[in-house]
Amino acid sequence: MRLVVIGGVAAGLSAASSARRRDPSLDITVLEKGEDISYSACGLPYFIGGEVPRAGELMVYTAEFFRRERNISVLTAHEARAIRPARRDVIVGEGNRFPYDRLVIATGARSRRPPIPGIDLPHVVCANTLAEARALQEHLASQRPARAAVIGAGYIGLEMTEALRKRGLEVRLIEASGQVLGREEPHLILAVQEELARHGVTWMRETQVSAIEPGRICTSAGEFPCELVVLAAGLCPSVELAAEAGIQIGPTGAIHIDDRMQTNLAGIYAAGDCAETVHLVSGSPVWLPLGTTANKMGRVAGENASGGRARFPGIVGTSVVKVFTLEIGMTGLGGTAARRAGIAAVSAEIRAPSRAKYLGGQAISVELTADRQSGRLLGGLMFGAEGVAKRIDVVATALHARLRARELIDLDLSYAPPFAPVWDPVLIAARRLARLLD
Amino acid sequence: MRLVVIGGVAAGLSAASSARRRDPSLDITVLEKGEDISYSACGLPYFIGGEVPRAGELMVYTAEFFRRERNISVLTAHEARAIRPARRDVIVGEGNRFPYDRLVIATGARSRRPPIPGIDLPHVVCANTLAEARALQEHLASQRPARAAVIGAGYIGLEMTEALRKRGLEVRLIEASGQVLGREEPHLILAVQEELARHGVTWMRETQVSAIEPGRICTSAGEFPCELVVLAAGLCPSVELAAEAGIQIGPTGAIHIDDRMQTNLAGIYAAGDCAETVHLVSGSPVWLPLGTTANKMGRVAGENASGGRARFPGIVGTSVVKVFTLEIGMTGLGGTAARRAGIAAVSAEIRAPSRAKYLGGQAISVELTADRQSGRLLGGLMFGAEGVAKRIDVVATALHARLRARELIDLDLSYAPPFAPVWDPVLIAARRLARLLD
Repeated sequence: MRLVVIGGVAAGLSAASSARRRDPSLDITVLEKGEDISYSACGLPYFIGGEVPRAGELMVYTAEFFRRERNISVLTAHEARAIRPARRDVIVGEGNRFPYDRLVIATGARSRRPPIPGIDLPHVVCANTLAEARALQEHLASQRPARAAVIGAGYIGLEMTEALRKRGLEVRLIEASGQVLGREEPHLILAVQEELARHGVTWMRETQVSAIEPGRICTSAGEFPCELVVLAAGLCPSVELAAEAGIQIGPTGAIHIDDRMQTNLAGIYAAGDCAETVHLVSGSPVWLPLGTTANKMGRVAGENASGGRARFPGIVGTSVVKVFTLEIGMTGLGGTAARRAGIAAVSAEIRAPSRAKYLGGQAISVELTADRQSGRLLGGLMFGAEGVAKRIDVVATALHARLRARELIDLDLSYAPPFAPVWDPVLIAARRLARLLD
Repeated sequence: MRLVVIGGVAAGLSAASSARRRDPSLDITVLEKGEDISYSACGLPYFIGGEVPRAGELMVYTAEFFRRERNISVLTAHEARAIRPARRDVIVGEGNRFPYDRLVIATGARSRRPPIPGIDLPHVVCANTLAEARALQEHLASQRPARAAVIGAGYIGLEMTEALRKRGLEVRLIEASGQVLGREEPHLILAVQEELARHGVTWMRETQVSAIEPGRICTSAGEFPCELVVLAAGLCPSVELAAEAGIQIGPTGAIHIDDRMQTNLAGIYAAGDCAETVHLVSGSPVWLPLGTTANKMGRVAGENASGGRARFPGIVGTSVVKVFTLEIGMTGLGGTAARRAGIAAVSAEIRAPSRAKYLGGQAISVELTADRQSGRLLGGLMFGAEGVAKRIDVVATALHARLRARELIDLDLSYAPPFAPVWDPVLIAARRLARLLD
């Protein structure tokens, strides 16, 4: 039995490794188009910002490790050109055939490139792959740009903004919409606005980039000098290879799979940033390219591609980001998203200290949203200077368990002055929400 | 309608305040035997250690605040001597009568005082009340003891050990059992041992104190010079007043109440450290005196004493403590406790970084326990240098929701390099546990 995996980063290598764990005799080949494998893409902003001094620290395993320890052949600079389901093979480069019995597609996602004049100039860069990040580092070192524009206020845009500020650049963050991280809650916008301003970043909201020129960026709000442009205007799933092979693409634009990571073609699985999954709160297909989901999907794809019967039910849409000293966490549906999904939602927002005030605890904002009809919890949004990241996980766990907002009030959450106040902010928000639901 | 509350700290004042919210016309009197009200008892070790410079910072509200803002009469130095259910009154001091229609008992807990010769000497102190903590501060300032013994390795003992070390004392922590925090897991014992040693504390396990003398403590492991002894050998619920009035005491030794905080006598409620509640994992009565539970119980007692129908279902036994740089969190039942409760339990323990290693993430230990038969999650124990306190809340939430261990694997927990590794330690432990359950 031959397993071929296309893609050698998070999902692909998780799939290969879990297939190996299940079946020691499987012939496993991973095809990676780039030069790098098994690195933390989420760590790239910290490499750019200088907190991670060497790119090598972001690498988890080498191809040699996979060959020696797991008997997995990982081939870099092997770009798959075509999948031929009828012949059960993958064509690489100039016609090199890789036959398979089972195939896992983990082609990932890439930067969206808006049709802006000048977008292909050499000072316009992305930082989604290790190769791109290395190129950006070299650009920073050799060109010494003083002013940068980051296009897009999603999590990569925010992280790259911080990274470039840390490197001493003047940074302008340009976002076409009025949102940040895809959210429009005014109290969140304001907090991000203040945090960016406090760190000398100009955030231009509802601003369109009309052209990029050497040394200048032209926008709907004026023209500004800038020697570096970082493109972070969202990602799109890399599905061309799959689509051309007749594999079904879902409504989100990513590869459609079932809860066993199986595509519509027998023996072909997909996992990670190229595939969609199910949002467990809305019940709808969702595409949210995040490393942790990619790893989970990869593991399940690998297990099933080697004869197992694993399932991945879906996500609740948890994400967290740090921008300077501000932590922002979210999970599930906010009020707007819920209403868009046809759910009558009610939200409660509170501010409360993240730990005892007499030990320096600072207030964080917690917003919880519930279904007005059933009282079921739909989502949470938190931000503040501390204690957000793992606290949002309480809400994520409650969403998985389909708890009602009222049930959160009694949660026996940990308390000790260095870590939490006697009423955890989640409990205070739950009480407020329960009162609104009465 | 007159509501009388006995006890003016966490549960008592929560009860009075929530009764006032429900019923603006209620006549509410709080009787507090001490001089202080509404302070964070859990903050006392930080006052002793010097992180909280003034006791006043631990006070949340004053009696004047309660009178003015909430129309609640809080009487300090009013020790209840008797409850007379037949006459519906409370006797204070030399026979002062306080008639009530509804009564909330929130008499709290006090230090257990083992029958050790010399235990009443002036250099043997507790630090459970603000008055005791102030006295200890004065003792430290005036007597300048150089060597202290802390008796009891529960959370107060550990926190006081750290506090006294911070004040420059040589500290010996003496624990009669082989446990720490009531747990006997060897990997936890070892971690605490190492942490205490690293901070110059001598931890004497399985050591009995036979006598205390001025300047000396005599133990089963020898005699040691010591000018200060802190008693932290556990707490016991203050139930005498209730018991003498015919109020039922439960199997734990604390006041028995139903899920509405109602005692066996009509119109009399109890809440906080003097009362027992239900352990939602074992289903058994449990007494675990913690501030957060006290506040929740107080709120429910106050709501029901003013005509409401609130419920408090119980706890899962979550607690967290910081000792020097070690965070220890636990919730639910460990393997030993589960087996003692007649449940065939299986545990899995892993060590994994709490956040990205390339950003300095340190390994934490996570142990999860499940019921072998049903696969249901029973509890978790975590410790490490960071990222423990709120992470244990994921397990606590899962226990409330009665999730099976297997369901934890797919939890969509937050991931970003500064906060978590791509596989959260909870997920890694859940996978290990699920494999053991297969």
